[in-house]
Amino acid sequence: MAKPVPPTGRGSGEPPGRDGIQAHAPRIAEAIRDVGKIGVDPAGGWTRLAFSDEERAAHEVVARWLDQLGLKVDQDAIGNTWVRREGTNPDGVPIVVGSHLDTVPQGGRFDGVAGVVAMVETMRILEEHSVETSHPVVGIIFSAEEGARFGEPCIGSKAVAGTIDESHLTRLRDAAGATAADAMVSVGLDPERVTNVRWGRDDAAAFLELHIEQGRLLEANKAAIGLVDVVSGSTRMRVTVTGEAGHSGASPMRNRADAMAAAAQMILAVESLAKDPFHRGLRGTVGWIDVHPNSATTIPGRVSMMVDVRDVDSDRQREATGEILRKLRGISELRGVEMDAEVVADTSPAVLSMWLRELLREVCVGLSMDFRVLSSGAGHDAQIMAHLLPSALVFVPSAGGVSHHPDEWTSPEAIAKGVDVLVGSLIRLDDVLSSTVG
Amino acid sequence: MAKPVPPTGRGSGEPPGRDGIQAHAPRIAEAIRDVGKIGVDPAGGWTRLAFSDEERAAHEVVARWLDQLGLKVDQDAIGNTWVRREGTNPDGVPIVVGSHLDTVPQGGRFDGVAGVVAMVETMRILEEHSVETSHPVVGIIFSAEEGARFGEPCIGSKAVAGTIDESHLTRLRDAAGATAADAMVSVGLDPERVTNVRWGRDDAAAFLELHIEQGRLLEANKAAIGLVDVVSGSTRMRVTVTGEAGHSGASPMRNRADAMAAAAQMILAVESLAKDPFHRGLRGTVGWIDVHPNSATTIPGRVSMMVDVRDVDSDRQREATGEILRKLRGISELRGVEMDAEVVADTSPAVLSMWLRELLREVCVGLSMDFRVLSSGAGHDAQIMAHLLPSALVFVPSAGGVSHHPDEWTSPEAIAKGVDVLVGSLIRLDDVLSSTVG
Repeated sequence: MAKPVPPTGRGSGEPPGRDGIQAHAPRIAEAIRDVGKIGVDPAGGWTRLAFSDEERAAHEVVARWLDQLGLKVDQDAIGNTWVRREGTNPDGVPIVVGSHLDTVPQGGRFDGVAGVVAMVETMRILEEHSVETSHPVVGIIFSAEEGARFGEPCIGSKAVAGTIDESHLTRLRDAAGATAADAMVSVGLDPERVTNVRWGRDDAAAFLELHIEQGRLLEANKAAIGLVDVVSGSTRMRVTVTGEAGHSGASPMRNRADAMAAAAQMILAVESLAKDPFHRGLRGTVGWIDVHPNSATTIPGRVSMMVDVRDVDSDRQREATGEILRKLRGISELRGVEMDAEVVADTSPAVLSMWLRELLREVCVGLSMDFRVLSSGAGHDAQIMAHLLPSALVFVPSAGGVSHHPDEWTSPEAIAKGVDVLVGSLIRLDDVLSSTVG
Repeated sequence: MAKPVPPTGRGSGEPPGRDGIQAHAPRIAEAIRDVGKIGVDPAGGWTRLAFSDEERAAHEVVARWLDQLGLKVDQDAIGNTWVRREGTNPDGVPIVVGSHLDTVPQGGRFDGVAGVVAMVETMRILEEHSVETSHPVVGIIFSAEEGARFGEPCIGSKAVAGTIDESHLTRLRDAAGATAADAMVSVGLDPERVTNVRWGRDDAAAFLELHIEQGRLLEANKAAIGLVDVVSGSTRMRVTVTGEAGHSGASPMRNRADAMAAAAQMILAVESLAKDPFHRGLRGTVGWIDVHPNSATTIPGRVSMMVDVRDVDSDRQREATGEILRKLRGISELRGVEMDAEVVADTSPAVLSMWLRELLREVCVGLSMDFRVLSSGAGHDAQIMAHLLPSALVFVPSAGGVSHHPDEWTSPEAIAKGVDVLVGSLIRLDDVLSSTVG
């Protein structure tokens, strides 16, 4: 059988054959295992929060691998790790591939990591087979993709896209009260230079991201690859309910202003609105709660919670958020508790590049790879990069659709198939961009 | 004006006059202030949890005051601090006065402390005026009265009453997983000797406790003193709901097993049952919640919560608890989540001694002190001691009824009035017991 990519000469657009998968699945398995040694949470799962020592340690491990490939590795002020493989055309605009290494608290081993490992494997294949591309190929590991710590997701890619600035970083706070800027400084990053990270429209030609699906569609359809058309946006609000703390025994039921009971009613209102057929497709979740004083014998005086609202349509997302706010305000008035709501993060849905998706579709067909076009309920760096340049998001199946959970699982073989699509797409994209430009 | 109590000779049963209040209110204010220097919580209020260093430090401060009065101070294996003032009758059975110094998290300065300071002031008045009593007067500071840390309230008095043993102490756990026995050992106490603490029926003649009301009845009625007839019982359950964690964006609403949404529905079910006119008087509260993984972008996979159920009637308390459990189980079945419920503590209501309350009523009348007879929604050491010996509970007003909250407030003058009732009652009780016995 032929080598998966031509050993010399520039990319022909021909995809690697099946033996490519045989070759790289074990390396992918080992890489996933090695990243999974960092941030093992004693309470279960993996915890490598945005701008934490664990996130940094994971970046360093992968940077070392890229360095061992003989490629130039760099880090920017926001903590994105970059690697560059030069092309034959000195004026070539880079094609960028990447994902992230941070996790939610007690998350899994694949969210983000699969895409980073796929990027490394892509670079290794290009190097080992001495594939020449006209355009430089840039790999990126974005920092702080998960919004779990600071409410705001995709901080690394937003810095690149120029949609976040220093003042924003000093406003975002984690549950312990530390700002994103503080957290950055504590791991040696530089929030003051965040605007330097910004890319112009001519700094890159296209962005490709491989990610686990985090849903069940591919598995249910026995498809190897998902090509994403639309990525959901998310609006995240911190809602604080203030009632009156009191003794659980000495306070009659009728005199209470129980912040937890009010919050419970609000949580059910969010759920019921998202389940209403009128809002089909909307997702509403209260995943984080903080109760004060959180004592068995004290009526809660204050409850804070994060309300996460997602839709693939921008207007539906914002209108549903408004409707939720009105419902919550109604509950707070009815119960005589105070309510404050603050929008902590608001990311628009993104319709990804259609021509780039068509190119990926052709590569899948060429590889005889079974694929589905689907939308993404989860947010991704590709959605942020889509504001700047044509971007594509390639999904590989998630076992049982489980994600943000220690049981998250995608087989190395499934990721290897995604790598084949990435490599094939890069080579074809290099061709297409070359013929377009001149 | 005459001295508040006869300077020499044994108690005449005559209450101290009004100038007594003038004399001891400033000392009470100072004592409350001094105890309030221990356990100041940076997050607000006072935190001196059961079997913590802060609780121990408060016991030591008060023990020093008692020592300075020239009285014999001791501590038992469960951490109760005892002080004894001998009587003239060598065979006299002690009359006991006391309360506690531990607090809920971010609680106030008066719950428990008012009664301990009143006990010290009572001892000081007896000493300063060289009052002779036939029976010894014993002061006690109970350990671990608040159930906030381990779920179980009144651990110190339960040890005295013989209703708690070592195996119980090794089963009780705080939120961090430490057992009550571990916590005791870490502050130098001895859970293995808990049964030694137990008193027989002949070890004490009566128990008096002064406490803040923690309700609004006395304030609303402009009454200085509350005489408690019945103390509510409490059944406390730890309910754990297990659903399925998942990505807040990638998981469709219809496939979810959201442990927090299920818990929210359960919290409202507890509230609605307690508010049902059929259960008038019942109090149901969810004050403590623990959410896993507690991340804005993850559907909660597991929620634990404490359900606190109180009533002044034993059967109503237990029947309502059963009804709550059936409702919660129905919710868990409907939502396809698992539910575990464990009774962490179960304290019966107590009807306090009628003859002792009548004696206190006469003292109040003699002092021209406006009083009300009322029940207590909060649990107290007096309720535990009532299983062992005649016990009385004297309330002083709480400003606005606020308790288990940093704003808890009772004026030193109001506590001083309670001290006058305590002193008068002790002296009269000494008389009554002497005439009964001999």
